[in-house]
Amino acid sequence: MISWKNFDQLDAYGKLDALKGRVRLQTAMAGEAGAERVAKYSVPMACGYSYNFAAKEVDDEILAALAQLADEAQLTEKYAALYNGEMINTGEKRLVLHQLCRGQLGEDVVADGVNKRDFYVGEQKKAADFANRVHAGEITNAAGEKFTTVVQIGIGGSDLGPRAMYLALENWARQNGTLKMEARFISNVDPDDAAAVLKTVDIPHSLFIVVSKSGTTLETLTNETFVRNALKDAGVDPSKHMLAVTSETSPLASSTDYLAAFFMDDYIGGRYSASSCVGGVVLSLAFGPEVFARFLDGAAKADLTAKNRDIMKNPAMLDALIGVYERNFLGYPSTAVLPYSQALSRFPAHLQQLDMESNGKSVNRFGEPVDYVTGPVIFGEPGTNGQHSFYQLLHQGKNIVPLQFVGFKNNQAGMDMDIQGSTSQKKLCANVVAQIMAFACGKQDENPNKNFEGGRPSSIIIGDQLTPEALGALLAHFENKVMFQGFVWNLNSFDQEGVQLGKVLAKRVLAHQTDGALKAFSDLFEI
Amino acid sequence: MISWKNFDQLDAYGKLDALKGRVRLQTAMAGEAGAERVAKYSVPMACGYSYNFAAKEVDDEILAALAQLADEAQLTEKYAALYNGEMINTGEKRLVLHQLCRGQLGEDVVADGVNKRDFYVGEQKKAADFANRVHAGEITNAAGEKFTTVVQIGIGGSDLGPRAMYLALENWARQNGTLKMEARFISNVDPDDAAAVLKTVDIPHSLFIVVSKSGTTLETLTNETFVRNALKDAGVDPSKHMLAVTSETSPLASSTDYLAAFFMDDYIGGRYSASSCVGGVVLSLAFGPEVFARFLDGAAKADLTAKNRDIMKNPAMLDALIGVYERNFLGYPSTAVLPYSQALSRFPAHLQQLDMESNGKSVNRFGEPVDYVTGPVIFGEPGTNGQHSFYQLLHQGKNIVPLQFVGFKNNQAGMDMDIQGSTSQKKLCANVVAQIMAFACGKQDENPNKNFEGGRPSSIIIGDQLTPEALGALLAHFENKVMFQGFVWNLNSFDQEGVQLGKVLAKRVLAHQTDGALKAFSDLFEI
Repeated sequence: MISWKNFDQLDAYGKLDALKGRVRLQTAMAGEAGAERVAKYSVPMACGYSYNFAAKEVDDEILAALAQLADEAQLTEKYAALYNGEMINTGEKRLVLHQLCRGQLGEDVVADGVNKRDFYVGEQKKAADFANRVHAGEITNAAGEKFTTVVQIGIGGSDLGPRAMYLALENWARQNGTLKMEARFISNVDPDDAAAVLKTVDIPHSLFIVVSKSGTTLETLTNETFVRNALKDAGVDPSKHMLAVTSETSPLASSTDYLAAFFMDDYIGGRYSASSCVGGVVLSLAFGPEVFARFLDGAAKADLTAKNRDIMKNPAMLDALIGVYERNFLGYPSTAVLPYSQALSRFPAHLQQLDMESNGKSVNRFGEPVDYVTGPVIFGEPGTNGQHSFYQLLHQGKNIVPLQFVGFKNNQAGMDMDIQGSTSQKKLCANVVAQIMAFACGKQDENPNKNFEGGRPSSIIIGDQLTPEALGALLAHFENKVMFQGFVWNLNSFDQEGVQLGKVLAKRVLAHQTDGALKAFSDLFEI
Repeated sequence: MISWKNFDQLDAYGKLDALKGRVRLQTAMAGEAGAERVAKYSVPMACGYSYNFAAKEVDDEILAALAQLADEAQLTEKYAALYNGEMINTGEKRLVLHQLCRGQLGEDVVADGVNKRDFYVGEQKKAADFANRVHAGEITNAAGEKFTTVVQIGIGGSDLGPRAMYLALENWARQNGTLKMEARFISNVDPDDAAAVLKTVDIPHSLFIVVSKSGTTLETLTNETFVRNALKDAGVDPSKHMLAVTSETSPLASSTDYLAAFFMDDYIGGRYSASSCVGGVVLSLAFGPEVFARFLDGAAKADLTAKNRDIMKNPAMLDALIGVYERNFLGYPSTAVLPYSQALSRFPAHLQQLDMESNGKSVNRFGEPVDYVTGPVIFGEPGTNGQHSFYQLLHQGKNIVPLQFVGFKNNQAGMDMDIQGSTSQKKLCANVVAQIMAFACGKQDENPNKNFEGGRPSSIIIGDQLTPEALGALLAHFENKVMFQGFVWNLNSFDQEGVQLGKVLAKRVLAHQTDGALKAFSDLFEI
């Protein structure tokens, strides 16, 4: 029997509060004891990753309290309830089924008279078929020529996840001969966004995917019309170049304006939709359906790992719990995500949405205000770039920012060379290793300006290579981490009421139904 | 006579602390009083911008205390000392002269026997001359063909600023017929970064700029060798395709490996170098020297405005002071930068370095620990994209994040259309206006999940169009804001000792001179 309790009603809350601050990284990570922590505080992940948390401010006693928290908060049971089809998104009265796109984790989920796993798999097959026919030259433009480019039109979850995933695999696919089509993305309602993309793509050889679950997203519909007009201007019939990814009940679903339509449903939130058709159509077109299937397979493996009740065998849950400990007891308000992989250049932007939109909330799942802090601010850039940018503050600033590193032993493109005794890849890995230790242990210097206090916690996810499977597993790890944190905080991580008010006011501005400061600002912009 | 005092030694410190929390935005911004604030709390900026801070938690009394702070902290005098050539970067014993690239703000600055303004202008002329000859086809590849692409190899300030500026003007230049060459950027030591860029540029028609002040930056030298080898493999003589931007004393300066070398010096820090040759060479090649000159002109105008002693006529100083008030008295640990302009997609990443590397410090300019918080965490993405991502937390999260909006009345590309009664540009502007008010006033709802508390402060910089001048002024605004905040906090905003320890440890890892946890992590990566 699941009981949804606020975090501060659990016994573990007081226990963790009493334990806070007992680990001093500067000593814990020094010498051979530090090496022992590195060996001991490592948890295997799906797809050959390991999650190493040696440089986090935890010890066995804190881990025991976190394990108690996991039990008390019924994290495993709540995850099972979710994938077995209970109505976890209570605010919107919806199931939460993104994991079903990737595998059957529990019981069959039947909703609206349909087996949902079958539905998602069916849409994947439709997308795969379509992509194969495009690649084979069976679906072409009016001149019978092959399509070379695919442009995704979407915003938020219809943009950030698919874009981050595309960038993550573009080089890998190029290297492995599976880059079938280049992908581009239009998201912003700023007309300069669509204009820039349209000026640099070959319109007669491009497919455009309009992605909107509701079929009513202002930015996306505006950009669709923008693109549609550009196609007409280029002498191209839009209905032969445009696809829709939407829900079956949306106005886009049955329109003859599209060459094809692929379906998602209300049980997959935008920020969790990269493994649905929202990511599937564009990624299958770009890389081929086999690559997308491998991506789903990696995610499914991580979803399975997340079922484990033992936190030392469940890296997503452990990562979530340590994050909660840092946020609620150590008082750190933000977290930096720092992938040492250029391919993951937009992965932090995706995680920013995933995390901040899911858990940036002040009321629990029953709408009652909570008395503890919830989701942190998330930001990040790839290393080593960040080292030459904001790491100064991370090392010597007044506030501590917990760090989430990601690194791979091997690069994707297979182009590397030995320069001054080491390859670029070795230099990259040496840097992330060095940073973990610099942050943890610091370094005393008699010049206070060159003094490093240390005591700055980090974890690292270490992988072999960023393949499609590895990317899927990495994505699912973070989705599951955010889900577990939402369970601990007793939030509904699957709605986003905070985005509504701005939409309402923007409509009012455009309708000139304004007064007071809203009118004054509108006048400044000459709206 | 300038005196460098800690912030908490100033009378204004206690005064501001006593005033904190007296402005409640929900009421201050409501009704006609709100409209009056919008009219009153607006300061003109260079190049036609205005800085509007109506939705900040300030009133006349707080502004008076901030003006007192500006006086007590001698912000105007310190700025004058800086541009007149005093040694402001005390840690590294260097002058701070980036403003001299843009104009003569005060006395002639002579250092190392050279008039520095003449030196910077001389290098600008060299770069302009070189760019003009490339564009005219006087400098070509070995086959006598014109160069079409320029690739900048640099990291940190040699990458983020120039890249953000290039992206900011690429569409504008395309629209105005001044996109002379496309620019690309290689920064990360991850070999996949260089590999990706090299696979998509036309090497025989590309120029490569190696940017490193010291000529010793590990990432940049590694990438240079990487590129050099790729050029040789492509049958191209690297010395006919590579340029250097460096200091006159660096190993790169006199090498015959380069087609040309352009010089900067130690008086311009990396994160302040976009208006030096670090930005100048690539931007002059990409857009033509006239466009770069217009960019400098806009920055010079903002630098002049920053001289004003009256904070109501000095937007950079006012912006700085309000930020200090929010950080030190209202206790907000981060700030989001939210440009409603797709062209500014990487501007937040540049500001992240500029701000966090400058003021993310714990000791004052004399190396003494300070007892107050300093620079905040900076993050951001363009609107409207952010609205569909992390704005949920900004609206309804447990912690308040101050917001810095930027918006323009007109787009760059001139491609816009009326869709459902309004253009995309109007929709974009309506959204930012709506957000300001939603954040400030919130909205009561009986469903607590749909309730918006409000009280979330923001400012907005409103411009006409993002032209080269406007971009320069915007950049200089933020450079000067960060400088003024550093003065208030009594920091040296111009060194970055916090980046050193990681470099030292990375070298140790590569030399296999490790033990303890450093060795254990190195082993995990098989280094």
